[in-house]
Amino acid sequence: MRVGVYGLGRFGSFWAQVLARHAEVRAWSRDPSHPAPPGVTRAGEDEVLAEPAVFFCVAISAFEEVLARTASRIPAGTLVMDTCSVKSMPAALMGRLLPPGVSALATHPMFGPDSAGESLEGLPMVLCPVRIDPDELERWRRFFTSLGLSVAVMDPDEHDRQAAFTQGVTHYLGRVLKDLGVAPSAIGTVGYRRLLEIVDQTCNDPWQLFLDLQRFNPHTREMRERLGRSLEAVMAAIDGVPRRGTDVAGT
Amino acid sequence: MRVGVYGLGRFGSFWAQVLARHAEVRAWSRDPSHPAPPGVTRAGEDEVLAEPAVFFCVAISAFEEVLARTASRIPAGTLVMDTCSVKSMPAALMGRLLPPGVSALATHPMFGPDSAGESLEGLPMVLCPVRIDPDELERWRRFFTSLGLSVAVMDPDEHDRQAAFTQGVTHYLGRVLKDLGVAPSAIGTVGYRRLLEIVDQTCNDPWQLFLDLQRFNPHTREMRERLGRSLEAVMAAIDGVPRRGTDVAGT
Repeated sequence: MRVGVYGLGRFGSFWAQVLARHAEVRAWSRDPSHPAPPGVTRAGEDEVLAEPAVFFCVAISAFEEVLARTASRIPAGTLVMDTCSVKSMPAALMGRLLPPGVSALATHPMFGPDSAGESLEGLPMVLCPVRIDPDELERWRRFFTSLGLSVAVMDPDEHDRQAAFTQGVTHYLGRVLKDLGVAPSAIGTVGYRRLLEIVDQTCNDPWQLFLDLQRFNPHTREMRERLGRSLEAVMAAIDGVPRRGTDVAGT
Repeated sequence: MRVGVYGLGRFGSFWAQVLARHAEVRAWSRDPSHPAPPGVTRAGEDEVLAEPAVFFCVAISAFEEVLARTASRIPAGTLVMDTCSVKSMPAALMGRLLPPGVSALATHPMFGPDSAGESLEGLPMVLCPVRIDPDELERWRRFFTSLGLSVAVMDPDEHDRQAAFTQGVTHYLGRVLKDLGVAPSAIGTVGYRRLLEIVDQTCNDPWQLFLDLQRFNPHTREMRERLGRSLEAVMAAIDGVPRRGTDVAGT
């Protein structure tokens, strides 16, 4: 198997290295200072775009510009997969911008260098078919499953809705707690230590990824608003303010 | 060693069982349906109050009433220890209500049946001396350390300040997330799964403990207000609103 990886940022570099255990991987980065990780061959932009399957590992906010610039240089018969943490926007872009002879599968590997650790076992990966032959989809589903991943096939809006209330709320709280200035404590409880792990892990990702994840997922605004309302509901319960129809836990 | 445990609720029952591995434990509960845990002897209220060391394991909000009712029945020479999750209020109450011949040590075992699991190794325990001979304090510090606990001696207000921004923020967010309705998801990331563990663990404690912990710690209001401001700061950063003097992570 041969694959191309377009982009060698924090995730692209990690993903290229994972794929290199099972495939011949050529990777490109606009930044010449980004080295190819072990087992991965650095190649020119057009060489990478000419691989039979190409993973785009670029910032969500950069994907439209990158795809518009490269789409016409991708040969017919190629399968293009994005790896963005939101799915509706990139799926629509691939459907609109890729030439008719190029296949497209939107993917979200829901892990990274921090959460993956030694093994991918049980980590979630979402596939959203955009324009792909059912047999080819099934081959890739089997390949990702063979890596130990827990693969779910769903439509892009369903992914974005579920991700906003799982990954989205986790990253949002991670940043909120970092802003609050939480730090290790000699009297930190087990729960507090877990909270610090979440802060470390979410805040290790680039700030731009956080902003993009919140801005380009159409469901995160509702998540943030509902979280704000829950915060107020618990605050009111502490202050002993009765609320009609409250669903505050335990009251 | 002989100790009394006054109160067999969720924490008292757990704590009596821990102590019974190292001491002869007599316990009392106002609720006759609460059984004594394995290794613990159920006894009358005055029998328990006559033990050489007595741990009060009652709700924070009940402590004043319980202590006022029992103080005169505690023999001189007894050491009274509370186990409340806040420390300024119970320390002041013990100093005020216990007869002069009775010693007092405010304690906060910062763990419970969920977080302790199989071992107490490395779990935090805070001691706030109220009225206790230095040798007796040192004996108890050594005893708790011998259980594997990480013991810190500090004044009650310092405990409350640190606890508000560690245990307090964790329990507050656990209740907020439960109110939001978070639930296991097929596409839950590693960070999200950790978040769910925090919700499970904090929400397993009684709702009254949560309210008391927030209401009787003089520093939790500041924690909740600062958390609300951090939430707004991150929200504003997502919306691209520039904020003077913002310390939002990564901007």
